[in-house]
Amino acid sequence: MYRTHNCGALRASDINTEVTLSGWVSKHRDKGFMIWVDLRDRYGITQLIFDAERTDKAVFEAAKNLGREFVIQVKGQVIERASKNPNIPTGDIEILVNTLTVLNESAVPPFTIEDDTDGGEDIRMKYRYLDIRRNPVKNNLLFRHKVAQEVRNYLSAQDFCEVETPYLISSTPEGARDFVVPSRMNAGQFYALPQSPQTFKQLLMVGGMDRYFQIVKCFRDEDLRADRQPEFTQIDCEMAFVSQEDVMDTFEGMTRHLLKSIHGIEVDKFPRMTFEEAMRKYGNDKPDIRFGMEFGELNAVAQHKEFGVFNSAELVVGIAVPGAASYTRKEIDALIDWVKRPQVGASGMVYCKCEADGSFKSSVDKFYDQEDLKNWAEVTGAKAGDLILVLSGPANKTRAQLSALRMELGNRMGLRKSDEFAPLWVIDFPLFEYDEEAGRYFAMHHPFTSPKVEDIPLLDTDPGKVRANAYDMVLNGNEIGGGSIRIHDKATQELMFKHLGFTKEEAEKQFGFLMNAFQYGAPPHGGLAFGLDRLVAILGGQETIRDFIAFPKNNSGRDVMIDAPATITPEQLEELHITVVQPQE
Amino acid sequence: MYRTHNCGALRASDINTEVTLSGWVSKHRDKGFMIWVDLRDRYGITQLIFDAERTDKAVFEAAKNLGREFVIQVKGQVIERASKNPNIPTGDIEILVNTLTVLNESAVPPFTIEDDTDGGEDIRMKYRYLDIRRNPVKNNLLFRHKVAQEVRNYLSAQDFCEVETPYLISSTPEGARDFVVPSRMNAGQFYALPQSPQTFKQLLMVGGMDRYFQIVKCFRDEDLRADRQPEFTQIDCEMAFVSQEDVMDTFEGMTRHLLKSIHGIEVDKFPRMTFEEAMRKYGNDKPDIRFGMEFGELNAVAQHKEFGVFNSAELVVGIAVPGAASYTRKEIDALIDWVKRPQVGASGMVYCKCEADGSFKSSVDKFYDQEDLKNWAEVTGAKAGDLILVLSGPANKTRAQLSALRMELGNRMGLRKSDEFAPLWVIDFPLFEYDEEAGRYFAMHHPFTSPKVEDIPLLDTDPGKVRANAYDMVLNGNEIGGGSIRIHDKATQELMFKHLGFTKEEAEKQFGFLMNAFQYGAPPHGGLAFGLDRLVAILGGQETIRDFIAFPKNNSGRDVMIDAPATITPEQLEELHITVVQPQE
Repeated sequence: MYRTHNCGALRASDINTEVTLSGWVSKHRDKGFMIWVDLRDRYGITQLIFDAERTDKAVFEAAKNLGREFVIQVKGQVIERASKNPNIPTGDIEILVNTLTVLNESAVPPFTIEDDTDGGEDIRMKYRYLDIRRNPVKNNLLFRHKVAQEVRNYLSAQDFCEVETPYLISSTPEGARDFVVPSRMNAGQFYALPQSPQTFKQLLMVGGMDRYFQIVKCFRDEDLRADRQPEFTQIDCEMAFVSQEDVMDTFEGMTRHLLKSIHGIEVDKFPRMTFEEAMRKYGNDKPDIRFGMEFGELNAVAQHKEFGVFNSAELVVGIAVPGAASYTRKEIDALIDWVKRPQVGASGMVYCKCEADGSFKSSVDKFYDQEDLKNWAEVTGAKAGDLILVLSGPANKTRAQLSALRMELGNRMGLRKSDEFAPLWVIDFPLFEYDEEAGRYFAMHHPFTSPKVEDIPLLDTDPGKVRANAYDMVLNGNEIGGGSIRIHDKATQELMFKHLGFTKEEAEKQFGFLMNAFQYGAPPHGGLAFGLDRLVAILGGQETIRDFIAFPKNNSGRDVMIDAPATITPEQLEELHITVVQPQE
Repeated sequence: MYRTHNCGALRASDINTEVTLSGWVSKHRDKGFMIWVDLRDRYGITQLIFDAERTDKAVFEAAKNLGREFVIQVKGQVIERASKNPNIPTGDIEILVNTLTVLNESAVPPFTIEDDTDGGEDIRMKYRYLDIRRNPVKNNLLFRHKVAQEVRNYLSAQDFCEVETPYLISSTPEGARDFVVPSRMNAGQFYALPQSPQTFKQLLMVGGMDRYFQIVKCFRDEDLRADRQPEFTQIDCEMAFVSQEDVMDTFEGMTRHLLKSIHGIEVDKFPRMTFEEAMRKYGNDKPDIRFGMEFGELNAVAQHKEFGVFNSAELVVGIAVPGAASYTRKEIDALIDWVKRPQVGASGMVYCKCEADGSFKSSVDKFYDQEDLKNWAEVTGAKAGDLILVLSGPANKTRAQLSALRMELGNRMGLRKSDEFAPLWVIDFPLFEYDEEAGRYFAMHHPFTSPKVEDIPLLDTDPGKVRANAYDMVLNGNEIGGGSIRIHDKATQELMFKHLGFTKEEAEKQFGFLMNAFQYGAPPHGGLAFGLDRLVAILGGQETIRDFIAFPKNNSGRDVMIDAPATITPEQLEELHITVVQPQE
């Protein structure tokens, strides 16, 4: 038996017990007459003591030679610790060791295995198995497990059935790029890895499964932006015989359960906001509502004066930054520079200080009098001591710029607290978005999303105005889940594909099996999918999903630990009926 | 709201309640003055009644036109049923319908959606979404979910952490054939889909995760034998600081929990049998011990007589078939024909009837006297009334043949009861098995399995005799799980690869990351993996794993429902830097 206790278990009540522990040498202090070792495992740290007077000489000598990260087994007596450590649960005791076995030695690790390590991202990824020994990474993985278990238990208790859908499916051109898998048994044919189990979960609804979920890996072969992974995990859900309200109620309940069970936080009914309202108030369809600074549209009060920049703009919009009237000229200039960075792209910014005495001081005093500026303050909700910041230009772009500024200020001012959770629903998304480059409409959510019945007449006349029965759950400025009520009849689905530019034949070839299924009694259904990686990161009060994935890939889609992808043998290529065509320089 | 109750919910206590139900038209009986509809959903069946006298005329007319599998919503009153149906939970009531809405029509389904369907395997697979509406399939999926939930809850309560390991890894030539995924971003390179998360779970142990599990899809591109799937699901588990006993105790506990929680069956401590004993007694390393007919080796009592066939055989081995002395000559001949089929491959079979009066009658009476045959009876454990069946030939082949016969007889005689569960451990597997064709040893389990310390000296002299720290859990004649204590030091792992015929460079290239990890303090560790598909099928008292998979593939690896795999576009091929090479006729 390798151990009687783990390294986080022993307490003052165990004093005088003989115990066996196994673990890693975390710290090793040799004072000549006395050696202390911090023995670490997943569960904690226990201090070992080797004493020249009390410890067997051979054991004492062996203890001298222990190195960091050696794996050892010790037997000894639990004794009261001379200088107690109140910071760790085992801090009242230590082990006076009488037997020491080195189970495995260790080379000097490439970085220190401590909460604050000296290892950079690259080296930690290459030696991820050592990185996982560190509390921050280990605790994230344990946290992820807990979240997944809570999700499963909650949904199972509500009669949801987890069904495994296949990973080897077929490729569809709509949506993101597929990863494909050449078939050995079917020369020239390929499987595709699922971007999501969307069609399968809909077929399960046609199959009467009624309430389905699955925590499932999904795959997208896209150029990786920061913090995107080619493989990611969804909590995928679908329900039959439901309206949008039913789906939202169910998964609002799930998220409320997670916040309660994991953080002990009770959350009220989630606020709801239409897409249009979210864009208008926050310039963003995933607003962070932990803090205010809602947009105030100033066209009515700032246009038709002498200021040409505003007069010619589609939108003039501002926010009131609380308490920022005291900003120096230098600080304000820095903010102006910030919005003019290419990543934000504003051409300039107007400000107006709301002074304590009720007067206003703006960068455009030449064009606006005190009464004008008072109107600005009213529209943006600015109070004495606040700073109004105003951008102008084309509506969509300007909203996006002001949203970026608002989030940046939220961060700088500490308003985005990691232990505060402000969920909401964003609803009534447009069904389509127009892609200038492709010159056609694309489904904003996916082609299976149903249009609002009252907007169906607009399909032919003004498709961009058609709203979908689609909803996103937003938490702290991130979309954590999104879904829709689906189309469940063949005619509407065909109409949808037509509007997406599919010929009848293309639609039939790619989605014939689904439309065929709709002919055999498809029930009304809808659902949603959560991004587990992001959900866990946000619930964990962090931003980077990579920190919550055991073995993530880098931004080139490589696993640097195992060095994947890699070449395969000519025999493998031949069996798969393919050859490699190296790209020309 | 689509429903107030599901179709399995209503009872006599609900009589007079106004309810709304939704579901599928399962049966439709029109007697002119009265129409009965069985309304079905996942939860059950509720009888609807439309009465020419009591039902609104328009509703009654609409009800006439309902077809099978139409999706409808009805509102009505729960009333007491005239002729109660005690076979279903809702059999005391029916719904007198006052409002009927057809939510979706249905074409005539290609097979009847009933427990006993007229649909063959092929058509049911093509329309799997309709097959899933049938109770036998639906209940299997619900059962699978329950088993998976029980596994997760049990292991989580024992401090196991479910960690998701990557699906896009790299290919290794050892083991089965990999499915590969061409990389767009790394021209000429490929990911591979995991055959199991073996190396990752070992790295998690190196990473101090201590107790890991994962219910995870695995992939093997092998020619599909009956009831094998290219993608299958494992319950993958690993523990650190454990001996073989610790691992076996833990997962014996898990299986005992499953049998208890799912079937209410208490099972004693699992018997253990060495590989050698299992082969000797049952001719099989996954013996079905629900019934006897253990092998009796007859060399000592049947050789050195006048019967040349036995004298020249490496092994003479028999079983006693209980109560089969009454078999007719014709029945016995049929059994002899059965063992001579190519699938079994015996060249003949000797029998001996143990008559009620204590005498013996054999097919080789010419060579053996009553005393000889009495010895046969003793060795095989035959009692009066039993039939002894004897095969002879090369030991391994003959054991396999007799094992096939024993299983066949077990089936025919009803001794393999689907509601009886007889688990056991088979231990002390050989480390290697020799492949005549390849002319080298292969790892019987996998190359990370540790040899028994006392057998290490045999590695160089007699590798076939080296036993592994490997164990299989066997249930009702099926291996449901298998595992081992792993090698955890670089030197032994290198030695293992050497014995498997790897050069140092090959080993380094393919498994360098693992052996490198072993240099940084790898703890002793071991684990096992269960095949979830098979485990669920056996726990469900069935044999075919396909019946427990929502969307299985056929024996050519095709999903006939979505028609995968399929061709992809030239643009996709180009982006992935590959071309197809059609095989030459």
